[in-house]
Amino acid sequence: MAILCRPAIAVPDNILTLEETLELARVMHADHPQLPLALRLIENTGVRTRHIVRPIEETLQHPGFEARNQVYEAEAKRRVPEVVYRALDHAGLGVRDIDLIVYVSCTGFMMPSLTAWLINALDFRPETRQLPIAQLGCAAGGAAINRAHDFCRAYPQANALIVACEFCSLCYQPTDLGVGQLLSNGLFGDAVAAAVVRGQGGSGVRLERNGSHLVPDTEDWISYAVRATGFHFQLDKRVPTTMKMLAPALRTLATEHEWDVSGLDFHIVHAGGPRILDDLCHFLDVEPEMFRFSRATLTERGNIASCVVFDALERLFATGGPPEEARGQIAGFGPGITAEMALGSWVTDSGPVLGAQATRAKPRAGVA
Amino acid sequence: MAILCRPAIAVPDNILTLEETLELARVMHADHPQLPLALRLIENTGVRTRHIVRPIEETLQHPGFEARNQVYEAEAKRRVPEVVYRALDHAGLGVRDIDLIVYVSCTGFMMPSLTAWLINALDFRPETRQLPIAQLGCAAGGAAINRAHDFCRAYPQANALIVACEFCSLCYQPTDLGVGQLLSNGLFGDAVAAAVVRGQGGSGVRLERNGSHLVPDTEDWISYAVRATGFHFQLDKRVPTTMKMLAPALRTLATEHEWDVSGLDFHIVHAGGPRILDDLCHFLDVEPEMFRFSRATLTERGNIASCVVFDALERLFATGGPPEEARGQIAGFGPGITAEMALGSWVTDSGPVLGAQATRAKPRAGVA
Repeated sequence: MAILCRPAIAVPDNILTLEETLELARVMHADHPQLPLALRLIENTGVRTRHIVRPIEETLQHPGFEARNQVYEAEAKRRVPEVVYRALDHAGLGVRDIDLIVYVSCTGFMMPSLTAWLINALDFRPETRQLPIAQLGCAAGGAAINRAHDFCRAYPQANALIVACEFCSLCYQPTDLGVGQLLSNGLFGDAVAAAVVRGQGGSGVRLERNGSHLVPDTEDWISYAVRATGFHFQLDKRVPTTMKMLAPALRTLATEHEWDVSGLDFHIVHAGGPRILDDLCHFLDVEPEMFRFSRATLTERGNIASCVVFDALERLFATGGPPEEARGQIAGFGPGITAEMALGSWVTDSGPVLGAQATRAKPRAGVA
Repeated sequence: MAILCRPAIAVPDNILTLEETLELARVMHADHPQLPLALRLIENTGVRTRHIVRPIEETLQHPGFEARNQVYEAEAKRRVPEVVYRALDHAGLGVRDIDLIVYVSCTGFMMPSLTAWLINALDFRPETRQLPIAQLGCAAGGAAINRAHDFCRAYPQANALIVACEFCSLCYQPTDLGVGQLLSNGLFGDAVAAAVVRGQGGSGVRLERNGSHLVPDTEDWISYAVRATGFHFQLDKRVPTTMKMLAPALRTLATEHEWDVSGLDFHIVHAGGPRILDDLCHFLDVEPEMFRFSRATLTERGNIASCVVFDALERLFATGGPPEEARGQIAGFGPGITAEMALGSWVTDSGPVLGAQATRAKPRAGVA
């Protein structure tokens, strides 16, 4: 059984508080006819602090798509290895034990993706599969868990490493002045995360079922406009209503697993904004307290895109975790509108843990 | 056992011949100091014709990254559905039978990716998993087959649809004047392809083993520079020597499967250029005739990136296919430098084939 082990997260040192964000909006958009609405929306996010890879003065400049993307690459190479090593430590594995790297990131673009650099720089085996995903946005955290789960289901002796790298501040577009865009400027933050899915052994969430759901005809609710200045994030004002459409999918997946979604022991969901969490409480008939980890991520780090689910999950681990065999769900939400959902149970010490850097005498993944 | 069924390919009506390509190079780069070398390299590709989505006069203009990407999206939506339906027909399945769509394309960028549009426009089930891959370049054809194989191995009742969409002509960069870039201008072509991997039943290549191999420290041999003008393809002059490093990986994978790579019955490989095929003959000790399908793709359509393996495989199907249980390999090569390799056997009518659009009474994919 695939086990999602304790994630590792890192955020940059540059901090932006809610007060600073509001003041920036007031100064930069003093003449904007909808400034009061934008300020109210930003306050309502509940985001108290965010972390950004470059100082705010530099972030507010747009040096061009090419320079931005070069910053993305440099910062990714600077920040990702540490979380990878920490996630491997959490899983009791070394780089040579990994069979698949799933790399999710929607805030910069490289070809080859960072997977090739990671394999070279961190000495993963040349046979390590590379699965870079750039187009699932905030849902990619859930998708990464689910594709890693599928891989370990196909090859029960295999281990997958997930890396999420989101520098949302590098997608700041000074010329985008819609209310949704001003709100986004106050909502998103930067982070890197990593987590291992072990095919066997380890402690964490035993992944039992996963599913995906696309809300019909909502492709343009969350999207990128791709321009000479880079990726322009476009947020439709209907997006906050999405949970009404996605909650039934969460409930259905649990029911198919013969679980009652309202009675789950833990919920780790993408905290895109406060209304997602409020609405999930309502539609899933769950107490607000059940979303405290996702809410803490949103409050302290903002919407860190595909990293949210890993940050929230890390907070669950940090409490010592729920009781053995506690049942829960993990869900990412993003463009499509798409939900990537997983169900699992909490297990500790599920089997013999290989030592870090252990020599493996195991069948190789890849045999049908 | 997962079966890779007969692919469907389509190429645009606009044809560019070798003679036209050479004449364009002569006229446009009359003063280029390395024009004779570039012309010789283009002639040596063996590419006789290519197909491009827009007329050549329009292709040679650069209307900006945004407009280019809008053309990409419009052409993808115009051209992909037909190959999807044809691939489903080949597999004897309907849209509602598909559990996963793997969409590979490195020549345009959309978020959400075309997977969301396909699900909506072609009426796939909302639960269909979406796996868009943009960063594996020409290796993505092989990667798509391998990830679809893994998925069907995880969920033997499931079916995966692969879509490859490559409009290389939309990455033409008039200001790129390196010899490698002039060569690329004479090498790449446009195509769309689709193929189904059935978890059970069907005819085609029974996928038995797959693997990946990254040649250490070659990240910058094939890469994109990401600029305000879009993706700029960068080809190192060492790339043609790559097969010396990848052939051992192909041999090793076959040996692990207790097959002799030199004795395989069919070879479907990415024909990036003529030297790839010549060198593979040499290093794998295989007759040139064995690569006739890949060579025909290169000759008639140019390097169509991730579509090459599907175009070459379709040519194998078009012959009626090899004898039952014939053994072969499929391999994509691309940035990294990465090889995505698969081994399989030819099977016809491997099991009961569901009728197209059949209602499925099958366990749902997603249960661990």
